Formats: sequence, structure tokens, C-alpha cells
Amino acid sequence: MELVEKILNGDIASAARLITMIENNREDAARIIKKIFYHTGNAYIIGVTGSPGVGKSSLVSDMINVFRKRGDTVGVIAVDSSSPFSGGALLGDRIRMQDHEVDPEGVFMRSMATRGNLGGLSSATRDVCYVMDAMGRDVIIIETVGVGQVELDIVNMAYTSIVVIAPGMGDSIQAIKAGIMEIGDIFVINKADHEGVDAALSDMEYMLHIGADKKEWHPEIFKTVATENKGIVELVEGIDKHRKYLEDNGLKSKKFYSMEQLIDLIKKRIEKRILDNKLGKDNIKKHINSILKKEIDPYTVADMILDDAGL
Amino acid sequence: MELVEKILNGDIASAARLITMIENNREDAARIIKKIFYHTGNAYIIGVTGSPGVGKSSLVSDMINVFRKRGDTVGVIAVDSSSPFSGGALLGDRIRMQDHEVDPEGVFMRSMATRGNLGGLSSATRDVCYVMDAMGRDVIIIETVGVGQVELDIVNMAYTSIVVIAPGMGDSIQAIKAGIMEIGDIFVINKADHEGVDAALSDMEYMLHIGADKKEWHPEIFKTVATENKGIVELVEGIDKHRKYLEDNGLKSKKFYSMEQLIDLIKKRIEKRILDNKLGKDNIKKHINSILKKEIDPYTVADMILDDAGL
Repeated sequence: MELVEKILNGDIASAARLITMIENNREDAARIIKKIFYHTGNAYIIGVTGSPGVGKSSLVSDMINVFRKRGDTVGVIAVDSSSPFSGGALLGDRIRMQDHEVDPEGVFMRSMATRGNLGGLSSATRDVCYVMDAMGRDVIIIETVGVGQVELDIVNMAYTSIVVIAPGMGDSIQAIKAGIMEIGDIFVINKADHEGVDAALSDMEYMLHIGADKKEWHPEIFKTVATENKGIVELVEGIDKHRKYLEDNGLKSKKFYSMEQLIDLIKKRIEKRILDNKLGKDNIKKHINSILKKEIDPYTVADMILDDAGL
Repeated sequence: MELVEKILNGDIASAARLITMIENNREDAARIIKKIFYHTGNAYIIGVTGSPGVGKSSLVSDMINVFRKRGDTVGVIAVDSSSPFSGGALLGDRIRMQDHEVDPEGVFMRSMATRGNLGGLSSATRDVCYVMDAMGRDVIIIETVGVGQVELDIVNMAYTSIVVIAPGMGDSIQAIKAGIMEIGDIFVINKADHEGVDAALSDMEYMLHIGADKKEWHPEIFKTVATENKGIVELVEGIDKHRKYLEDNGLKSKKFYSMEQLIDLIKKRIEKRILDNKLGKDNIKKHINSILKKEIDPYTVADMILDDAGL
């Protein structure tokens, strides 16, 4: 049986194989995704982000339990753009996720890290979403390990984006100030049994109030204690509510594929073409020599290449 | 007097104006960089990276003092790709850097953060290097605030890349394991008066030993106590030694402009063309509609656009 068919039948080993091909940016991965793309759009994609230590992984683990009890199959993608430094954090997440390893048919997990190719990370994560979607996962959760701009971009491509904070971590106001508000459809104050939860809540409510008139959707704030499984059912109900809002207003499909996603892919493809020598490595090298000799500047070279191509 | 001329004469206000234009990704910035590019290549670019808390800013501040005493003018670029979350860290750095604000002609500082456009950050940082280079700065120090892959890529474009760790921070072995070794030309164990410095040093020496035969340049390890100004002169001498190695072996110019840099710029320019409607926003929208209707897959669209352009 062909790999595509196996994946469409939900075969985990085949999906894992394709994901490895995606990570290695192999051209045959692109060929297979072209085929499975027509079978996507059924999974509901949720993004979860927040600083290290706020308890994202426990929260995701709890959410999985709720989805599994409903009978939903789940795919989890853990994204880490800062892997060269934070191998430890990722490891911790993995250990916590082992709870679900006894349920491989129900919960399929993959970690995505940069392999020195950051530009490709969001595009690759998207491709992994397609794989999990096409194999029939009902819910896909993208959890970030790092908290950089890449992760925010990735979480933002989910239908429902969840921003997690913890009280007393000093970053609540900072995070809000820095424009996180636009990204979150739902906000979670985890570790709600810790001190400072009221301050965090009122900070958040205030900031949400300021931006309120700019948005159609008014983000809800949930308080959870992930380690004690508290507030999780309410959170998942909140996700359902947001999902209904998107579907009722025809916004879900708009989020499924945006211009930003296509631009991302075009950039990835042009890079691959240059590296695969389709544009002529000798030609590129000649240009770089001219730049080094100061015969021409890089902008003129870049524009020339695109002009010649009529782009 | 024209902006270009003013910058070439070292005018700080004009340089600051151009850098703001670069940050906003304005087309007139590109036009000016095309002109000043021919006056670059004289500054020596140093990159400094490491986890938060290792004391990068104090170290950079001390290094600036050594360069200033020699009579070198300095440009500092603080890069933060994780700005949405780490506003506080950047602020701390800025406060420490205020020591040099009494010497604006000698030390010119700028912070670079993503404005929701991560892809542009390394390219923009490069452009800011050109500005500081063209205005006559002898030394440019790129200091990272975050520690993600973007920052590593940016630091890696310096002639001399310095990786800073601190003893007992738990990340020494992790950082080494995760492939940081290839990036560092020089390693610094800061806070060398703290406990655990010997362990950090022997970890590092061991890892450097493993990779030793793969590299022409054997990275040196320096111990510093930045808060007490200890070990800084030796570190700067180490930088000079690496600089001499690059120059003697004709490697400096190779680092000045690489294929990766040109690919980065081409990607940035193609994105700008799409967003500026040169490729036809209506056309792009039509494609996205077809994707949403599952009439076509994104890869085929992206390839079609590039094929049509002959790229």
C-alpha cells in the first residue's frame, strides 16, 4: 500500500515516516503533502503558548484527557525554535507527556525543533498539521516550548490560540504590554492556587478591556490548576465556544489558509530551488564575488534575480 | 546635505533615522543601503550570545571600555527576537548600557526587536551593520538578548562569534550538547568567581576536544568576571588573535557576504514584492480561494508562481 493511502487510513508509522521526511525538508515530502492536502481541513487546531514554567505541558496533558474522554483522537506537536539552548526544557515536556504513551492510537505526539533552518519551522509545522489532519486526528494541539516570535507565529496559525501565564512570574504585565493580546483567543492563568492570581487577573482584564473595541471576539480568561486537573473542563468548553464563533461567522476556513502562509511557502520553495541548484549555484557564486569586490550591492543583485524572473 | 553623505560623515542622527527606516522595512531604506554598501567592509563585527543571566551585557560593556581606550569607535546592536515576552530583559540591558551614554560619539547603540516579522530580523540586523560600518565605526558588537535560533544565526554572521556561559547555571552541558560548539569562535565562562567554574571549564574543554579535528580554528576559552572587569583585556586580545587568523587566511571577506545572506535577502525581497502588490494581490487571493476550496494544494500554487517566473 502506498504511503499516502496508509496515512489516510491513520497509520501511525507511516505518518511518523512522512513527518521525518518533512523535518529533513525532502522533496518527496512535498510531493506527498500535495496529495494528502486534499484530505485536510477536518481537524480542529489549537495553539498553546506561554513562558517556560507556566505549566503548559501539564495543561496540554489535562486537555488531552478531556478530549480523549469525549472520544476525540488527538495529535500533539511540540515546537521548539530555541532548541540549541533549551534541550532541557523540551526533555521535561516529553517526560510529562509520557502519561499518554500508553494510548498511541488516541494520542500521537511529535516534537519539532529547528535544524538550523528557522525559516522552515513554521512551514514544516504546518505540513505536520496536514499529516495529522489527513490521518484523521480530530484535534491537533500545537504546544510551544520556547516563547519567541516564531512560536507566536506558529500558535497564531491555530484556529484557537491559547496564551498561558502563571501568577507572580513577573511577566504577566510585560507579556500583556508587548502585544500578546492580539494573539490570544483564550487566556489561561494557570497555577491559580498560587499567590498573585488576583493581580494577574485584574491586569489581564484591564488590558483586554483596552483592546476590546478593536476585536469582534472578546477573549475569555480561565483560571486553572493543571497539576490538580482543575478548571480544564471549563477551558475546553471555552475552546468549543470559540470554535462555534469561528464556524458561525465563516472564519474557520479563512484561518485554514492565509496569504501569510502562501508567502511563507513561496519563500521556502525559492530557498530550496536556489540550494537545489535550479537557479544555478555558479550564477549565485558569481554574484557573491561581485558583491565581495564591491562591484554591485546585494539589494541590486536580489532585485535583479527577481526582476529577471518577472516577479 | 543628502542622508547618504551625512551617514558617511558619521552623523549619528542621520544613521539613527536610516535605522528606523530599516526597522519599518521601508523601500527608501533599501535605496539608501544600495548606496552606502560600497563604503562598508571596514568595521570588525563581533557577535555575543548566551542564555539570559550569564552577564552578556556587563561583558559587552567592559569590552566597549577596552576598545574605547584603544581609540576605536564602537557600534552596538542588541537583538531580541523574543520581544513579545521578554521586554524586561531588554530593559535591563539598556540600563546597564547607560554607562556609555556619556560617550555618544564613541559608542552608538541600537536595539533591534521583531515587529511581527521574524524573517526580516536577521536581514535588518545586517543592514544596521552596514549603516554602522559605513558611518565609520571601527568595531560593531551584536549582542543578543534572547537565545533562540534567530539570535544564533545573527551572531554567526559576525566575524568573531562569542558564546558566553556562567558556571552552575545547569545549561553548560546542555548548551554544549546542542551544537553550540560550531557557532563559537571564542567561549567565555563569565562569573568565574562563582562555584562550579572548574566543572564548566572541563565540560567545555572536553567538548571542544571532541570537535577539534573538524575545525581549522581551535576556539579558546576565557574566564571573566565582568562585574569586576576581570579577564576582559585577555578576551579582547583573543578576539584580535581570531581576527588575525581570519585575515591571514583570507576568511574575513568570505564571512562578509555568503550565499545564505543572499538567499535571505531574496526571500525578504520576494515577500515585499508580494505585499507591495507587484505580484498582484488579486492573483494571490484567487490562488488562496482555490486552496480553500481544495481545487489545488499550496505546494502546487507556490511552485506554479515560481515556475511561471522561471525561478
